[in-house]
Amino acid sequence: MKNIVVQKFGGTSVRNLECMRQVLQNVRRPLGAGSKVIVVLSAMAGETNRLLALAKEWSSCPDAAELDSLVSTGEQISVALFAIMAKDEGINCRSVLGFQVPIVSNDSYGKARIGSIDSEKLIGMLEDHDVLVVAGFQGVDEHGRITTLGRGGSDTSAVAVAAALKAEVCEIYTDVPGVFTTDPNMCAEAKKLDRISYDEMLEMASMGAKVLQIRSVEFAKKYNVVVHVRSTFSDEPGTIVTQEDANMETVQVSGVAYDKDQAQVTLVGVLDEPGVCASVFTPIAEKKILVDMIVQNPSKEGRTDITFTVGRADLDATLRLMEALKPEIGFKALLSDKSVSKVSVIGVGMRNHSGVAAQAFRAMRDENINILMISTSEIKLSCLIEDKYTELAVRTLHQTFVGQEQVG
Amino acid sequence: MKNIVVQKFGGTSVRNLECMRQVLQNVRRPLGAGSKVIVVLSAMAGETNRLLALAKEWSSCPDAAELDSLVSTGEQISVALFAIMAKDEGINCRSVLGFQVPIVSNDSYGKARIGSIDSEKLIGMLEDHDVLVVAGFQGVDEHGRITTLGRGGSDTSAVAVAAALKAEVCEIYTDVPGVFTTDPNMCAEAKKLDRISYDEMLEMASMGAKVLQIRSVEFAKKYNVVVHVRSTFSDEPGTIVTQEDANMETVQVSGVAYDKDQAQVTLVGVLDEPGVCASVFTPIAEKKILVDMIVQNPSKEGRTDITFTVGRADLDATLRLMEALKPEIGFKALLSDKSVSKVSVIGVGMRNHSGVAAQAFRAMRDENINILMISTSEIKLSCLIEDKYTELAVRTLHQTFVGQEQVG
Repeated sequence: MKNIVVQKFGGTSVRNLECMRQVLQNVRRPLGAGSKVIVVLSAMAGETNRLLALAKEWSSCPDAAELDSLVSTGEQISVALFAIMAKDEGINCRSVLGFQVPIVSNDSYGKARIGSIDSEKLIGMLEDHDVLVVAGFQGVDEHGRITTLGRGGSDTSAVAVAAALKAEVCEIYTDVPGVFTTDPNMCAEAKKLDRISYDEMLEMASMGAKVLQIRSVEFAKKYNVVVHVRSTFSDEPGTIVTQEDANMETVQVSGVAYDKDQAQVTLVGVLDEPGVCASVFTPIAEKKILVDMIVQNPSKEGRTDITFTVGRADLDATLRLMEALKPEIGFKALLSDKSVSKVSVIGVGMRNHSGVAAQAFRAMRDENINILMISTSEIKLSCLIEDKYTELAVRTLHQTFVGQEQVG
Repeated sequence: MKNIVVQKFGGTSVRNLECMRQVLQNVRRPLGAGSKVIVVLSAMAGETNRLLALAKEWSSCPDAAELDSLVSTGEQISVALFAIMAKDEGINCRSVLGFQVPIVSNDSYGKARIGSIDSEKLIGMLEDHDVLVVAGFQGVDEHGRITTLGRGGSDTSAVAVAAALKAEVCEIYTDVPGVFTTDPNMCAEAKKLDRISYDEMLEMASMGAKVLQIRSVEFAKKYNVVVHVRSTFSDEPGTIVTQEDANMETVQVSGVAYDKDQAQVTLVGVLDEPGVCASVFTPIAEKKILVDMIVQNPSKEGRTDITFTVGRADLDATLRLMEALKPEIGFKALLSDKSVSKVSVIGVGMRNHSGVAAQAFRAMRDENINILMISTSEIKLSCLIEDKYTELAVRTLHQTFVGQEQVG
């Protein structure tokens, strides 16, 4: 078998015939170099939302399994149309749906996780065709019911297929040239990264650098799939997401990310007893609300303050849960703030370079940006700040750590 | 296992939420009587045409297999939406796609024929659910690629499922109350038939009584499935299509049908040699053009005239084929006429009642309708006439044979 290249294109790249022709240009590149190509496509832009809206009209709480069968038609349509166009252009190809591989997932409809992919079946199809056009976002459970992998799941489909076939590379096409050191809309000095490690990409992705779905990066890391994030509209190489190498650590910070979807909740004067944190966070978890940063102050006179952040859309529900807990945990006041955001500096090099935190705090102080909360990981430092300072903080941190130097 | 009732609803019956609710009323009838129900649905009205138009935009000659995968999404959407609505209304149901049964067909994409249905799988699903919502029109070939059964194929899906499950009845819901003795739009005296035999229905269906797809009637006859053609919008019984019984033969003629899609071709002065008919009709068959009536006059001086009819859309292609044959078969002139139509009287009782033909000819003569061609079968007499007399001929024949008498 020849080399296999997996390419994934999102909804805007397949939104009409003209865009699909542009996609085909990208497919011809590895094809011309003698590779077999697996093209993973999303639904045409807007189609998934159209189907979801239809389901909402039919029921305020549509059955999850039926919803998956419904929305999976979006990808079924785009792969059929693409194959129709590509065959017309003389490409030896066919479309492949999730059940036809099969791409087997668990039965968590709407957010299913891939369990196995029949790579022999795909290899067999590749023997008869130069290009397979695989429907992203969809799988089947063990009973043959259609599942979907959650928003952005086509990235995961592509990486999973690349892993199953031990593909040379999994190219993820987007409307930007690659992964940047920070948001170019916020900071003119933002630079495209040539390489980034899986762990750094995970931190960047979870911070709102929306070029890659976070689960697909986890998958790529687990199976060591080389991911190439690049532009649909250019032949220029983009950013390679791969295993960390020694070279990467010479750069302290690879990027600066931010997340404006933050709301802060503080429980003032909570009785500091064993199990109080469990009492606070268990009901939140049960409502599937994601808590990001958590800080607990040292106890004073048997009472403590607990502060944490949630997504803004979850703030009201969180406050209701806390009010309901008041009799149990006996806090004195419940405070909240929606006008906060989080800025983060990320880099595998941080492990071996002390002083990144101190340098970041000094840079923020010099701009009079007050830090509300801090959280750290091995390769990341995050600060919660007032929302209105977000852009200033990003530019300042980017200037401090990435500056004008050459990266990559 | 309880009684099983199969119900099929077409595109206009599922075109929006309100119509689907109306469909659910019809499902509740057998459900309330203790039966399990299999609901076979078409795509929402207009959806199949929308998808076909999209494919045509993508390619002037879209790949047949991809086209089937594309258009099958229409039924996938309607069954998912119906199941979402029905579950919301408390019905224990699920949608079922062709590949999930599977409904296995050959690989004649676009006009596939059902080979087998896994009835055990369906029975298993019926043990867990009161209602299965099955996507009509679609199957899979032995390699798991999606096929479609051709226009109106949902009727065939319904009858095939009813046959596989030995269902009590296969109800085909339409926007008319049943099968009529003739077109009510053309003849005010048209009456709804309570019963009609498979063979009569086949003749009626092929004549343009478009309530039932002809292949579904052949299927019903082969597997002895009782078909009930009835209205979506009424509880009144419609027409039962079933095996012929002795009672039926007391009525000479069950109905009068017509077909305006007729064009006449005459080869004048063909050399009357062995094999000349084969030479004429083989190239026509190779182009998949359907020839309906054929008449050959007695030979005079070694030459004869051959007259036949084809669909009007095929006339130009047919004439080109005949011109190309001229050197081989040496006719003197090639005539054609698009302004012709066919009227037919149909009834199993004709077998045992002589004189139907003579009576029909007299009735037509009395109205000065010239008969251009005649063809007969055991249960049918068809006359080709000038197009402009169609309505008059239908009313005259209906008055002659059906009249005001009670039928059924």
